[in-house]
Amino acid sequence: MNIIERYESEVRSYSRGFPVVFTKAKGAILTDRDGREYIDFFAGAGALNYGHNDEALKQKLIDYIAGDNITHSLDMATEARERFLEAFHDIILEPRGMDYKVMFPGPTGTNCVEAALKLARKVTGRRTIVSFTNAFHGMTLGSLAVTGNAFKRKGAGKALDDTVFMPFDRFMGEGVDTLDHFENMLTCSSSGLDHPAAVIVETVQGEGGINAAGMDWLKRLQSICRAHDIKLIVDDVQAGCGRTGTFFSFEPAGLDPDFICLSKSIGGYGLPMAITLIKPEFDKFAPGEHNGTFRGNNPAFVTATAALETYWRDDKFACSVREKGETIRARLEEMAAAHPELKPEVRGRGFMQGLALHVDGAAEDVSAAAFERGLIMETSGANDEVAKLLPPLILSEDELRRGLDIMADAVAAVARKREGGEKRVA
Amino acid sequence: MNIIERYESEVRSYSRGFPVVFTKAKGAILTDRDGREYIDFFAGAGALNYGHNDEALKQKLIDYIAGDNITHSLDMATEARERFLEAFHDIILEPRGMDYKVMFPGPTGTNCVEAALKLARKVTGRRTIVSFTNAFHGMTLGSLAVTGNAFKRKGAGKALDDTVFMPFDRFMGEGVDTLDHFENMLTCSSSGLDHPAAVIVETVQGEGGINAAGMDWLKRLQSICRAHDIKLIVDDVQAGCGRTGTFFSFEPAGLDPDFICLSKSIGGYGLPMAITLIKPEFDKFAPGEHNGTFRGNNPAFVTATAALETYWRDDKFACSVREKGETIRARLEEMAAAHPELKPEVRGRGFMQGLALHVDGAAEDVSAAAFERGLIMETSGANDEVAKLLPPLILSEDELRRGLDIMADAVAAVARKREGGEKRVA
Amino acid sequence: MNIIERYESEVRSYSRGFPVVFTKAKGAILTDRDGREYIDFFAGAGALNYGHNDEALKQKLIDYIAGDNITHSLDMATEARERFLEAFHDIILEPRGMDYKVMFPGPTGTNCVEAALKLARKVTGRRTIVSFTNAFHGMTLGSLAVTGNAFKRKGAGKALDDTVFMPFDRFMGEGVDTLDHFENMLTCSSSGLDHPAAVIVETVQGEGGINAAGMDWLKRLQSICRAHDIKLIVDDVQAGCGRTGTFFSFEPAGLDPDFICLSKSIGGYGLPMAITLIKPEFDKFAPGEHNGTFRGNNPAFVTATAALETYWRDDKFACSVREKGETIRARLEEMAAAHPELKPEVRGRGFMQGLALHVDGAAEDVSAAAFERGLIMETSGANDEVAKLLPPLILSEDELRRGLDIMADAVAAVARKREGGEKRVA
Amino acid sequence: MNIIERYESEVRSYSRGFPVVFTKAKGAILTDRDGREYIDFFAGAGALNYGHNDEALKQKLIDYIAGDNITHSLDMATEARERFLEAFHDIILEPRGMDYKVMFPGPTGTNCVEAALKLARKVTGRRTIVSFTNAFHGMTLGSLAVTGNAFKRKGAGKALDDTVFMPFDRFMGEGVDTLDHFENMLTCSSSGLDHPAAVIVETVQGEGGINAAGMDWLKRLQSICRAHDIKLIVDDVQAGCGRTGTFFSFEPAGLDPDFICLSKSIGGYGLPMAITLIKPEFDKFAPGEHNGTFRGNNPAFVTATAALETYWRDDKFACSVREKGETIRARLEEMAAAHPELKPEVRGRGFMQGLALHVDGAAEDVSAAAFERGLIMETSGANDEVAKLLPPLILSEDELRRGLDIMADAVAAVARKREGGEKRVA
Repeated sequence: MNIIERYESEVRSYSRGFPVVFTKAKGAILTDRDGREYIDFFAGAGALNYGHNDEALKQKLIDYIAGDNITHSLDMATEARERFLEAFHDIILEPRGMDYKVMFPGPTGTNCVEAALKLARKVTGRRTIVSFTNAFHGMTLGSLAVTGNAFKRKGAGKALDDTVFMPFDRFMGEGVDTLDHFENMLTCSSSGLDHPAAVIVETVQGEGGINAAGMDWLKRLQSICRAHDIKLIVDDVQAGCGRTGTFFSFEPAGLDPDFICLSKSIGGYGLPMAITLIKPEFDKFAPGEHNGTFRGNNPAFVTATAALETYWRDDKFACSVREKGETIRARLEEMAAAHPELKPEVRGRGFMQGLALHVDGAAEDVSAAAFERGLIMETSGANDEVAKLLPPLILSEDELRRGLDIMADAVAAVARKREGGEKRVA
Repeated sequence: MNIIERYESEVRSYSRGFPVVFTKAKGAILTDRDGREYIDFFAGAGALNYGHNDEALKQKLIDYIAGDNITHSLDMATEARERFLEAFHDIILEPRGMDYKVMFPGPTGTNCVEAALKLARKVTGRRTIVSFTNAFHGMTLGSLAVTGNAFKRKGAGKALDDTVFMPFDRFMGEGVDTLDHFENMLTCSSSGLDHPAAVIVETVQGEGGINAAGMDWLKRLQSICRAHDIKLIVDDVQAGCGRTGTFFSFEPAGLDPDFICLSKSIGGYGLPMAITLIKPEFDKFAPGEHNGTFRGNNPAFVTATAALETYWRDDKFACSVREKGETIRARLEEMAAAHPELKPEVRGRGFMQGLALHVDGAAEDVSAAAFERGLIMETSGANDEVAKLLPPLILSEDELRRGLDIMADAVAAVARKREGGEKRVA
Repeated sequence: MNIIERYESEVRSYSRGFPVVFTKAKGAILTDRDGREYIDFFAGAGALNYGHNDEALKQKLIDYIAGDNITHSLDMATEARERFLEAFHDIILEPRGMDYKVMFPGPTGTNCVEAALKLARKVTGRRTIVSFTNAFHGMTLGSLAVTGNAFKRKGAGKALDDTVFMPFDRFMGEGVDTLDHFENMLTCSSSGLDHPAAVIVETVQGEGGINAAGMDWLKRLQSICRAHDIKLIVDDVQAGCGRTGTFFSFEPAGLDPDFICLSKSIGGYGLPMAITLIKPEFDKFAPGEHNGTFRGNNPAFVTATAALETYWRDDKFACSVREKGETIRARLEEMAAAHPELKPEVRGRGFMQGLALHVDGAAEDVSAAAFERGLIMETSGANDEVAKLLPPLILSEDELRRGLDIMADAVAAVARKREGGEKRVA
Repeated sequence: MNIIERYESEVRSYSRGFPVVFTKAKGAILTDRDGREYIDFFAGAGALNYGHNDEALKQKLIDYIAGDNITHSLDMATEARERFLEAFHDIILEPRGMDYKVMFPGPTGTNCVEAALKLARKVTGRRTIVSFTNAFHGMTLGSLAVTGNAFKRKGAGKALDDTVFMPFDRFMGEGVDTLDHFENMLTCSSSGLDHPAAVIVETVQGEGGINAAGMDWLKRLQSICRAHDIKLIVDDVQAGCGRTGTFFSFEPAGLDPDFICLSKSIGGYGLPMAITLIKPEFDKFAPGEHNGTFRGNNPAFVTATAALETYWRDDKFACSVREKGETIRARLEEMAAAHPELKPEVRGRGFMQGLALHVDGAAEDVSAAAFERGLIMETSGANDEVAKLLPPLILSEDELRRGLDIMADAVAAVARKREGGEKRVA
């Protein structure tokens, strides 16, 4: 780790929690410099839904590069761009009856969120964006302003204005529909809530603690937006591209958002790419009004297209995700049942689940114990209270089972240590 | 163009000015679907300093991918990351006597600017950033707030606050040192200028019209910053990586910035990558305080390292850039001398030069005429008044000559048409 | 009305609802140019707690002016200023065991609120202020930012930032303690609520619809502020100076605010005056850091002192206010009981009560009908749904009875008309 | 001073510089508790243009109060309000060919400025206000945001946004027309200057150091505003009501502002009052969109009307102000000539002049020495470098001469002490 400690900024984080140097990767397995293998239940924080270095995608990528095809093209027309647009339309949008224009806003999640926020403000002529408690949308100032985390917000060094936070589903406890409060604030003309341009929401909050909104809550949220002429932005950067068992995370709720943000796994191979989907009637940026150098990352277009063609031509892949998701659920419920002393709570859906442990530091201990045992998994939540599972969607049943076994073992070890009165260090 | 028009957002711009579909690229040459070749005087807006698909870089890239090495890694430690850090230190920083920590803030220019702005505000506890007239720093809210272009600013749909614009070098006409005004505003305690956290500056404004700051002006700017405890951020996204004839554009001025932003050509091959260089004493983000999914774009680390090793081990490459830069200068002066009726003005330095034509629409006409003749070049400036040259630094003398010949021909054609009273269409 | 319509701005409002020219006034009675008398249940929106032209105050005022004593003095020391400070200390603060420094921030309510907001931000180094739904604090930008009314907020023409609105007591319906939500937002580190500098609250919201916070709610609000190191500002501009039956409206709750805003009736005679009370430990403005021309309105100091000496030396006056407040309550309950068809709801306490009528336009009709019958009373609330009573505290039992009779008659008339199917015009 | 020190906030300022208790006042003379008299060259910072307790105004005021006429009336119609509106129209507006609606926005300078800023933003739909270096407009957040003084700005405790500061006349040194810079920023579409709603300007900056804008500069400023559809607000709070020798300070420049702010001496007697004059086409606040408790300070309407009738029916008063202004000028020039060692500079016009002394602390020493000698005069400027004269306009030639004699003596004493090497204490 010497080089990285010496030359890289202190802001680095994962190289601290997983203090090895990784070299190789395939499917769901990461290998470090010493040849040790790890099952990857992290998947690039959701950027590797199709696993590491998928063979089908890899070959297309190598062929493209080897053939001296266009690598970088800003937003000039290229064949790779055309093919992606066509595949996305034919394989994803059209079969779902969805009509959207595709914007390439720069190849990161925060870029596609910023583009949606700017456009929602532009088309409405209003400036207020409503976001939710525990939301995470990115690190540039526009996205950070709609992100709830106090630690990250402080990094801005300035006011993050023109945003209002409403309670996410279940934030006010069971039995309270938090949208009552939002609706009251909207309908009371003296509530102090300036008429919002848009609401931005994650259907499952990844960084915020694997909080999955209920389908009825999401439907009602859309109804409220419609009734008050507020644009609805779904940030599907982490929950999209199949992670919850459907391509878009909001399909079970039947949402029809005005803007959709996709990044992470849209490129298929872990290459930087992002798109903002825009309802045609709101496609109102003038040419060049939002630009950027890496909007034409053609290698990512190539792998993105291959991923769509490989995994989304029919329903098989999505079905397998949903099935394995049930397995994950069952195993997490078992772990929870086995260790009530850790005050556990199973959260999430599909391949985006987690075990919240309401005992200080326990989830971080689970992550550390899992790493020792050869499993990579992150924590999330306001206080890192959730041991979070984001396995690649393509992992085998055996890999899934082995990973869950390790996790169960890690949870048990943490429980034992706590029982034995051992204090967690740091 | 059908597919792109149908499916892509109206925000696309270059696909309008260069209305062909590009397929292949090599060195300084782009090829469209019909096999037509174009000399590329645009170079991905400065992202392709080493040209398209450089053979040395390409082979390393393919080998890396083919070997199932880590592609995506967030900010986990990988060998590719280590090698880049080491190469950057050994080849770039150390020989120049520079001591900086490297931050990977997300792989786009706007990301590395946002990171610098946030950190400058954090370490000073102040919020005001001073930027300059005609500055361009990016499209996310933090970067857009320090960007001067009114058209782009309107895209924000909200106030872009905590920024103050000062006149760039020569903005107030010849003979006026614009820094007098900045210094007066700083020293007068009733000027209304809140004490700034930082100044952000491009040494040559690319999008703003190829305005090259004088070396004395830059030196004085740094002195003023030092005297008033203001951090100095050099945005070298477009002018850096050798474009002006030295690795950093500010080397001739001997600047010692507190933060340096690099993107575009730092990846070497046109792959998304960006870094923020931070003086060790200001490396004060806590772990994870600024994060992002694509901070570990390992293929870009591989090509970035290869580019440093290939082009920057010794001074030859930089010398050739400076020499050819002289050629460009001479030819632009010739064109200017030949067409006084176009009210021409040669601007810039190194491989970042342009011909400002103070006749409405003339620069855009030159760009269009050049494209017809097989040369790709952009316009820039507040009113698109500059025909801008950003050739790849590796182009041959023959390619450079041919490109300049085409440009000269295009300028002559535009001059003739204007003389003939022809009106420019759109 | 000719002159006023011709020369005065369209922003004028009360001259529309009460379209006569007033000339004389005494106690609780206003007289118009035609000699018609009106019982005043409005009392200058709470600025005339001691009625119009109180004889004791008037004589002191005339003597002061006639004697060529200082009229205007900025914040220079004058005897009138000294006497007020001494009387306020001896009669109000000391007997209540309260220790505050008195700031004269400019002679209007919005001035004393702005001063408190600025100082709370300065002493905490934070910028966020928490306000409540239906709050009203003033029209200058700082105060307007913490005011809930959408119509008034729009008048700003710009973002009103650094403020967050929480639900006031009972805003979320009976049985919900709205402070649960505030406390959750404060304790969740990812709620998006930046740590506030201060909370600003009216114990009874006057303009917002005569919403009286419960004493337990107020106590808990103070506890939450203490627990989170948030300053508590009570805006007692309308509810203070005896209006609710104690000098400060928060006395029954035993609050100990960090800042208290007083204006309206503090001057005693309707002359412009305002003070901000500051706990000594937060008295941190440097000399002159907040200034203003009319901080030394000596005639108002004279009447203010006389009012304190006349009405607050003992408990008699406050007792009579509380007793008559009971009468008001009883009569409003009668009116409510008599007209369920108007969906009535009695609100408020002391001499700050109102009858909310949840039938569109009914409260405004009551105000209009009352005016026709010789009673001046305003409406308030987000939708002007409350017929609001703010009689001068000194009115006689007979005047109170007559006023309430008129109001009851007006309510009955409105009910009859509605029953008869008559539509309200405008 | 005991009581004031014990009970009043530390923010008090003038009671420190003039550490006596004032009791009586008449014309240009103030008297302290010990019977000592002072010539008043301060005049309530311009609020007492007609001196203290003017007999004509006083009698009208006493009669009004004694007659139980309306004292406080919010914005209800009263005879006193009508009479003021009529007198202001007949005596001030009509003879000057000016057509404005009168808004009563709350009785302080900052209130009338806030109203103008809000309305300018509302009618243009833009948010940026351009102000000038050394500007002073008030202490509430909207006005403070357009005030240049760093010390006062810090009091806000938050960002003061949506404002841009341009160099006032002569800020960039002699021979530079500072409006060139403003015009360049406006016409360059990439300057970063968002299209402003309005410019706010004082023709003579009082607090900012008695900087008098040239008439040509003011005319050009108006032309620029017109050319760019920017509203022009003249803040005539301190320079208006005759102080510079005409009722409005901008009359010699022939300006035709869109909004005019008047306060301080508009009430005539030092009673709180303020008005915002609005061109009829911009009188677009809806009824009640801006309100406030003390918009109907009838005693001030009475004295305001009396002042107009007494002093402005004909040109005599204004002429005498201009004549005495010449005397002031001549004497200041003498003092300057006599003491080059104090690096003196005479500034201002009419009864708003000052002696800038570019020797650290000298102006404050002059003020202190004058006070010892029985003359009250303030300092102003970014560094308190100006000994500032604001005598009441009505003072006699003898009083003027005596005051100037004292000032000359004080200047000489300060010069002597400095020569003698004595250090200034505090």
